[in-house]
Amino acid sequence: MKGLFGMKLLEERILQEGQVRPGHVLKVDCFLNHQLDVELLDKIGEEFYRIFQNDGINKILTIEASGIAIACLAARHFKVPVVFAKKAKSKNIDGEVFTSTVHSYTYGKDYDITLSKKFLGPQDKVLIVDDFLANGKAMRGLLDVCQQAGAQVGGIGICIEKGFQPGGAQLREEGYKVASLAIVDSMSDDGLTFRAQ
Amino acid sequence: MKGLFGMKLLEERILQEGQVRPGHVLKVDCFLNHQLDVELLDKIGEEFYRIFQNDGINKILTIEASGIAIACLAARHFKVPVVFAKKAKSKNIDGEVFTSTVHSYTYGKDYDITLSKKFLGPQDKVLIVDDFLANGKAMRGLLDVCQQAGAQVGGIGICIEKGFQPGGAQLREEGYKVASLAIVDSMSDDGLTFRAQ
Repeated sequence: MKGLFGMKLLEERILQEGQVRPGHVLKVDCFLNHQLDVELLDKIGEEFYRIFQNDGINKILTIEASGIAIACLAARHFKVPVVFAKKAKSKNIDGEVFTSTVHSYTYGKDYDITLSKKFLGPQDKVLIVDDFLANGKAMRGLLDVCQQAGAQVGGIGICIEKGFQPGGAQLREEGYKVASLAIVDSMSDDGLTFRAQ
Repeated sequence: MKGLFGMKLLEERILQEGQVRPGHVLKVDCFLNHQLDVELLDKIGEEFYRIFQNDGINKILTIEASGIAIACLAARHFKVPVVFAKKAKSKNIDGEVFTSTVHSYTYGKDYDITLSKKFLGPQDKVLIVDDFLANGKAMRGLLDVCQQAGAQVGGIGICIEKGFQPGGAQLREEGYKVASLAIVDSMSDDGLTFRAQ
């Protein structure tokens, strides 16, 4: 699965504006998950399209909230719909749903994700996208939902992978096509190092 | 504030795929807030740009989760960043924040919205966008945040307004430029009626 997956523009932006916080937190809220640089997200979406355009993707799957922005800008290039898993059971979801339980390291607790059954099925080949991949717990929830739906996973597109945590390596070992546009191999107050890829 | 704000394409889509549920719930999860038709959202964004392009907008403000998709597709046309208020205080927001308490009729309880102070200030003139406007409680929270920040509100762009609930009328009375692309004046099992605008 080696390939030209790194995205210099994103790495540079992380170096310029990312902030390292205790507990391996990398804050990129200036452009990726609180304030959103839509021009950059559009380039990220274009890059995911370059990587996954021949993989038969007919739907982009993500999880609220930050993933939605990335999924929407990618979907423009693929010309496919987005569906996003919700983090709390909404009163406005009726009918049958897929659910999966996800452990959050950030909050130290479990939460359920929910996806309406009518939006994912055996006819779907999805690209799963998200802003971060670290331990991969949220990704496991999305993969679980895909398995319940009988949907194929055509690829996994991540903006920033924490390469020193095990999520990405495990997914690649299992044979998933994982493209992380920036892989942070180490981070400290002194700076970041990115994996060459 | 009368103008050509109605969007036929959106009204038709609501008639085709919207579902009326007890308690004045209009489900449009097929295309607007669970599965997302990004091509339609792009046209919605283009329409907001047509309406607000001369209002000096330099930022688009919304609230997670569904609003993010609409904001991002609109922001492409305005070429401005998006910032979204979070519905729960995140561990990953540090520094000072604006907060406001919002009452949810859907869930029958209050929740806090949070926005990092560094992303909104007196230099900003924002377009606030959201998928629905009914009683306008979430919008009041966003307006409160703008007031705390000293930011100007250049306009309010809504996909679907429930015209039989008071939020939109109150905002227009207060002088806000509110553009709702579809205003539902009545809904029942027998169908919907849209306000001519």
